[in-house]
Parts: sequence; structure tokens; C-alpha cells
Amino acid sequence: MNPVDIIVKKRDGGALTAAEIQYFIQGFVDGSIADYQAAAWAMAIYFQGMNAAETTALTLAMAASGEQFDLHDAVAPGTLIVDKHSSGGVGDKTTLAVGPIVAACGLPVGKMSGRGLSFTGGTIDKLESIRGWSPDLSESQFRRQLRAIGLVVAGQTSNLAPADKLLYALRDVTGTVPSLPLIASSIMSKKLAAGADAIVLDVKCGHGAFMETLDDARALSHLMVEIGQRAGRQVTALITGMDQPLGHAVGHAIEVKEAIATLQGKGPADFQLLVESVAAEMLLLGQAAPSREVAQQQIQSVINSGAALEKFKAFVGAQGGDLRMIDDPSQLPTAPISQPFTASQDGYIAQINAQEVGLTCVALGGGRQKKGDPIDHSVGILVQTKVGAPVKAGDELGLIFAATQADAHSAMERLQRAYTYSATQPAPLPVIYDRITA
Amino acid sequence: MNPVDIIVKKRDGGALTAAEIQYFIQGFVDGSIADYQAAAWAMAIYFQGMNAAETTALTLAMAASGEQFDLHDAVAPGTLIVDKHSSGGVGDKTTLAVGPIVAACGLPVGKMSGRGLSFTGGTIDKLESIRGWSPDLSESQFRRQLRAIGLVVAGQTSNLAPADKLLYALRDVTGTVPSLPLIASSIMSKKLAAGADAIVLDVKCGHGAFMETLDDARALSHLMVEIGQRAGRQVTALITGMDQPLGHAVGHAIEVKEAIATLQGKGPADFQLLVESVAAEMLLLGQAAPSREVAQQQIQSVINSGAALEKFKAFVGAQGGDLRMIDDPSQLPTAPISQPFTASQDGYIAQINAQEVGLTCVALGGGRQKKGDPIDHSVGILVQTKVGAPVKAGDELGLIFAATQADAHSAMERLQRAYTYSATQPAPLPVIYDRITA
Repeated sequence: MNPVDIIVKKRDGGALTAAEIQYFIQGFVDGSIADYQAAAWAMAIYFQGMNAAETTALTLAMAASGEQFDLHDAVAPGTLIVDKHSSGGVGDKTTLAVGPIVAACGLPVGKMSGRGLSFTGGTIDKLESIRGWSPDLSESQFRRQLRAIGLVVAGQTSNLAPADKLLYALRDVTGTVPSLPLIASSIMSKKLAAGADAIVLDVKCGHGAFMETLDDARALSHLMVEIGQRAGRQVTALITGMDQPLGHAVGHAIEVKEAIATLQGKGPADFQLLVESVAAEMLLLGQAAPSREVAQQQIQSVINSGAALEKFKAFVGAQGGDLRMIDDPSQLPTAPISQPFTASQDGYIAQINAQEVGLTCVALGGGRQKKGDPIDHSVGILVQTKVGAPVKAGDELGLIFAATQADAHSAMERLQRAYTYSATQPAPLPVIYDRITA
Repeated sequence: MNPVDIIVKKRDGGALTAAEIQYFIQGFVDGSIADYQAAAWAMAIYFQGMNAAETTALTLAMAASGEQFDLHDAVAPGTLIVDKHSSGGVGDKTTLAVGPIVAACGLPVGKMSGRGLSFTGGTIDKLESIRGWSPDLSESQFRRQLRAIGLVVAGQTSNLAPADKLLYALRDVTGTVPSLPLIASSIMSKKLAAGADAIVLDVKCGHGAFMETLDDARALSHLMVEIGQRAGRQVTALITGMDQPLGHAVGHAIEVKEAIATLQGKGPADFQLLVESVAAEMLLLGQAAPSREVAQQQIQSVINSGAALEKFKAFVGAQGGDLRMIDDPSQLPTAPISQPFTASQDGYIAQINAQEVGLTCVALGGGRQKKGDPIDHSVGILVQTKVGAPVKAGDELGLIFAATQADAHSAMERLQRAYTYSATQPAPLPVIYDRITA
């Protein structure tokens, strides 16, 4: 085998064998295949695609490129390891609420999460709003906490699917990001390496998401479900809306506040529904509930009893977080400036460009333009009035939390442009568009 | 401008501006654009193509990436600088005969040539069969000889279109060689940088050539003629056959012998015709003959008078070559073994796989498998009986010149497989398939 023959085979529309894909990925990681060859190969895949067998082989090869975890010894015998993944959105604090609910229902959740970049935030960054909380756990600490509390969120080890890390970094600078097989294998390789028996995928769809159309989101979902099947894992994908920010809060500390409210059943309607839906899918895949109805009852029960919030506190405390901030969320970091923004005209809110809202939050200091940038956890935007609401010019739409008056002013101008209005009431935006399963 | 945007624009089928192409090529050469980005870009061009304006911009950007020559001060005032280029074939010693003929007709020829790789030989390697002959000339030596003798063949300076050299090397290892705009711009960039006002292209077509079909050869020719027009140069392309080796001789010293015979009008019919046709096109483009008829008369005249051979001797002598080898070609390097190879069956010769014959010559030691390999100038194959000839099993088809009996034996077996036979006489193979001009 040689890399040029493999590039040419793909360039000419051939289906690569699993052996060819393994050879290419191994060579790319060990440096015997040059990055320029991997770049040409990725561009050939962009144009010619990959079938499900090829995509699965790529997923498994990337998963096998580093450490592969098995968490079964850290849970009760016979327990399935269920993970969730969101393709990334604006105001997406789902893990913060889903994790404690599912764990409170008795299904352990041990997650490796990432940090945010550009307009999408990261779970770890959000949790770092809580003074003292740390994602840095040794593997034995991770297992111990999973066994003791049933809920862990740690930073991704650098040796989790390193081939994916290398290939994604290369795709990012060679115009080869938007390829379904490359996206699907990237997501699934990390989940497989992290040891999931079953995975609930939250595939975002809309202006603020990577998949802008429902068709694209469906195609990606079907592909990931099929990779799961071929790799012997259960996968359910929910296609969920990102045509406006999720919930109200966009910003780190305010998203933690919103997650705490949601754990108590008091979250914004769209976010509460999404959280409970993802949690139900996890309980079903994890065989922790015999039916959807029972799963939904369990979820209501742990919310109403306070068990979900207690689980969150146990988890935060175990990772060094200051629990006074959970008991009294007003103690979470708060920006000095709080300023309303208002409707520019009469009408119904027709669209809220989630990506623009996310970028406004980045501009406020609450996000990264490049890796390693510091984050101001206290800033953000509360999007209180959402698509479908009737408004009059000057009505308050929400609040901006900023470090300076100038920042708040810029954010206000930018947010004005993120809203569009219509004379007639638009159809309500669904929270969940579709559910794809094997 | 940034490289990713330019890659994405091409990936999505957009036409790049000249400024974008210049930025990309300059960045690639100065290292600010990474080779993996250039590889992804080349693969995007493979799939999306480039229009004539883009291809011209790429040609000019690569020509401008290094030294650009102007030879007008080394020729009589008003003389046009005319170059020729062959896309490479087996037994292609055309420059060796065309150069002296055209120079003897009064049109100076100053060529920068390359070395051979794989099954195609290089003009410089062939001339190095002549003891003492050297392609290493300083620029002032080059100009002095062009002025004094009207004929120079030198090695390509490493600073001639360095962007092309880099991009070609990258394409070679990334599966992006067979792209018409990339091939056309590669050829034309070197010719433009070498200072040609006019160029005669000999585009080979057939099994032993890069363009296997006439359609591909026509498309490449039209594109190069159009690049010439847009860059203000006259270009004529002859599409010529490479479905069997050109002439009889395949090998370095024996090709020099055949060129010497051709300068005296005694070359194999196909090669003699090709040489005189290319020479006539050069004289026409160089305005050294008022019409094709006059050009053909001039050519016959310098052949018959011995002026063409004298010009060859003056050129060889000026570059240090031993003229006794020209006066008595039997003194050129001669292999110790000379062995006939024969027809394996009765019938008409239907095909002679030129590439196989070329590779057999490489296997004999008369070619390079990789850059820098040494060459045995004495070995080769004399293909005396060509397509269309009636033969009986056991008839001599030609001669193998080898260093050892074992080499000759392997070559014989390999050559057997290069010939195919038919029961009925095949149509004769044209030497020139088409002529494309502006």
C-alpha cells in the first residue's frame, strides 16, 4: 500500500477498504504519511464522499489511534455506559442539566467534554463559572467519582482519538470541514474511544448550527446511527432546532443559573423540553427505564424531589466547586453592567440569528476567537422574548451583561441586527424536528 | 485574503481572480501558505477545473516566481525567440534534430532542457552520450553561444519557475498530477520564464504519452494555445502519435546516432517527418520563413547541404563535446551485448506499447527510476519493424543493446509482451494527428 494510490483511488470515486483506511490514519498519526497527503485525501473525500462501511472504518481507525476507555469497572455490573453529544449551538447548556437528571435516575454519566470556540460555548468553560470547580481529574479520580456519585465531567485527555484531533486541525485550515463522513467520523470516534455502549446525539439544525438544513441534519444523523450499528453501539439522534438561541441564557455564568433552574423544573419551555427529551433517550438506551412513559415519570420525579439538583451539587462539590454558588446562584460571577435591549419595530419576532447572538457574546468577552483565549464568565445575553412573540417598538427583548458601558452599547447595536420581524405571527419553531434511530 | 477562503472558493466551483492566484502562489513559494493547503487547493482544482483566465494567471504567477529571461540582446535585432516543447514520449530525440535544422535556417534556438525520469528520456541525458558535452553554462556563456552559433541547449536553472517545481513535486505525491489546467500551466510557465516569444508544442498522444486520448490532447493543446494568446505569445501545438516509439532508437547513444542520421535526411520516416514538421512550425512562428512552402524548402536545403549537421557539430563542440563521435557515430558509447528480438507469431504488428519499451530501456539501465540515478548511455532498443508491418514468427523485429546477457534476456521477454499482432493489416498510424493554433 502507498498513500498516493489510496488518494487516487478515492479521487476516482473508489470505496477504500478498512485496511487502506487504517493504513492511512496510522501513517498520518505516526508521520509516515505527510499532512499534505492527508489534506489532498480529505479534499478527495469532500468531493467523492465515503459510504457507511468506509466511514465506520475511519471512525474505528481514529478511535483506535489513542487510548480507548472502558468504564464498566466503575459502574454496577451490567450497567451500560451511555454518553451524549451535541453538535454545538448557542445557549446549549444541555449537559449541565441532563447529566444530573440521568444520574439521579440511577444511570451513571461519565463525560469527557471540550471547551468552546467561536460562537459555541463549551460545557467545561460554563462549569468553570463555579469558583473552584475543575475538570482536571486523573483517570482513577474519574473512575472513583463515577462509582461514588454517578456523575463526572472531565476535560478530554489529549490522547483521546489523537488522529481525529490532527485531522480536524488539518481540515480546519484546508477547507475540508463540511464533509458528512468526516464530520460523522470525527464525532463518533471520540465517543467510541471514550467507551460509550450507547450514545444520544443532539444534532442541531438551523442558522446557528453547523447543519443549516433539516436534510443535512437528517443525513448526518442517519450516518452516525449507522456507524453506531456497524460498530456495535446503540445510537439515537434527536434533530433539534438552532434557529434561535436555546433557552434564554447565552453566556457562561447565566447558563449555569439557567441549568440550575431547569434542574428544578423552572427552565425556559424550549430548554426544559429538550433536556427532558435527551434525558429520556439516555435512560431508554441505557435500559434504565422500561418505556418512555416510565422514563418521563422518573425524570419528573427526580426534578420534583430535588434529587436532580442534589446530584448536581454532589458532582460540583466532588470536583472542588463552591456549593454556595449553587445554593445562591446570585453569587455566580455577575457583570457590572446590566442593560436591556429593545425591539426596533412593531410586529412578531420572526427570527433570532443564533450565530449573531453567539458572536455578540464572544465580542462581550464571553467566548474565544482562538484557542487559549481567556473568557469572562460573567458576561452574556439573556434572550427573554423569543420567536413568535408579538412586540412593540421599544419593548424590552432581553438583557445584556457587559464589562463596560461601551461593550453593552456595541452589543445592543449588534443584537438589533440579529432580530427580524414579521407582520403576521410566524409558525412556532419546533424544539425537536426529528428522531433517528436504528 | 487568506488561503482557506481561496481553497473554499475553488472547492465550491468559483473562479479565482488573478490577485487570489498570485497571492496563493507567492505564499506557497515563500512558505506562508503551507504545503497541505496547496495540496488541498490542487485537489479542489482537480475536481473543479480552472477557466482559461485562471489558468493563465496561474501560469504567469508561476513564471514570475523566479528568474525571467530575456534573450533578445543575444540575437539580431527584431529576431523572435522561439522555443519548442514536447510533452514527452519514448524515443523522442526531436530537439536534437530540430534545433540544428532551425538554427541552420537562421532562427536562433536557445533551449533550457531537463533530464529524463521513468520511461521518458531527457534531451540533456541524450546529449551527454557525447564525451565531454556539458549542459552547465553560465548565463553569459549561454548568451555568447546563442549569439555566435545560434544554438544552445543548457540545463534548466533551479530558479526557473520555482513555484512550478514545488507545485509539481507536491502534485506528484498527492494524486493531483492529471489536471489539465495544472499540466498546461506547468508547461507554459517554464516556457514563459525562459523568455519565449513563440512556442511550438509537440503534444504526444497515445499509450506511451501522458495524454492517452486525442480528445485529451486536443483539450490540453487548446488550453495552452489560449494561455499563449492571453499572455501575448504565439503558440502552435502539433498533436503527434505515441502509440509506438518514435523513430527506431530508444536509448541515449543510439538516439543521438538516429538524430545525426535525421540531420542528413536519413532518419526513420516517422521521425524525419515529425522533425521537419516541428522545424517548419518554428520557422513560421519565428517569421523566419514567409510561408510553409518556403520553410520546407529551407529545411530540405540545410539538410541536403550538410549545414544542419555542421550546426549540430558547432553546437556540440562549443559545449565541449568530442566531435570525433559525431563524425564517426560508431565511436558513441556501445553496449557489449547486441541481441535481436523476434516476432512471437505470424501476422501484422498491431501495437507496440511505447511505455513498455521505455520501461524496458529503464530496466536495461538506460533510464532513471528516481531522480539522480546514474544512466548507462550505451544501452537501448532499436525498434526496426513498426506498426503495420507483416511478420512471421521468428522474424527479427529489432535489436537489444545490453550490458549483460541476462539483461538482454529479460528485455527480450519484456519486449515480447509489448507487441500485439493482428490477422489483418491495421490502418497506418498517423505521425501528426492535428495542429492547433490561435
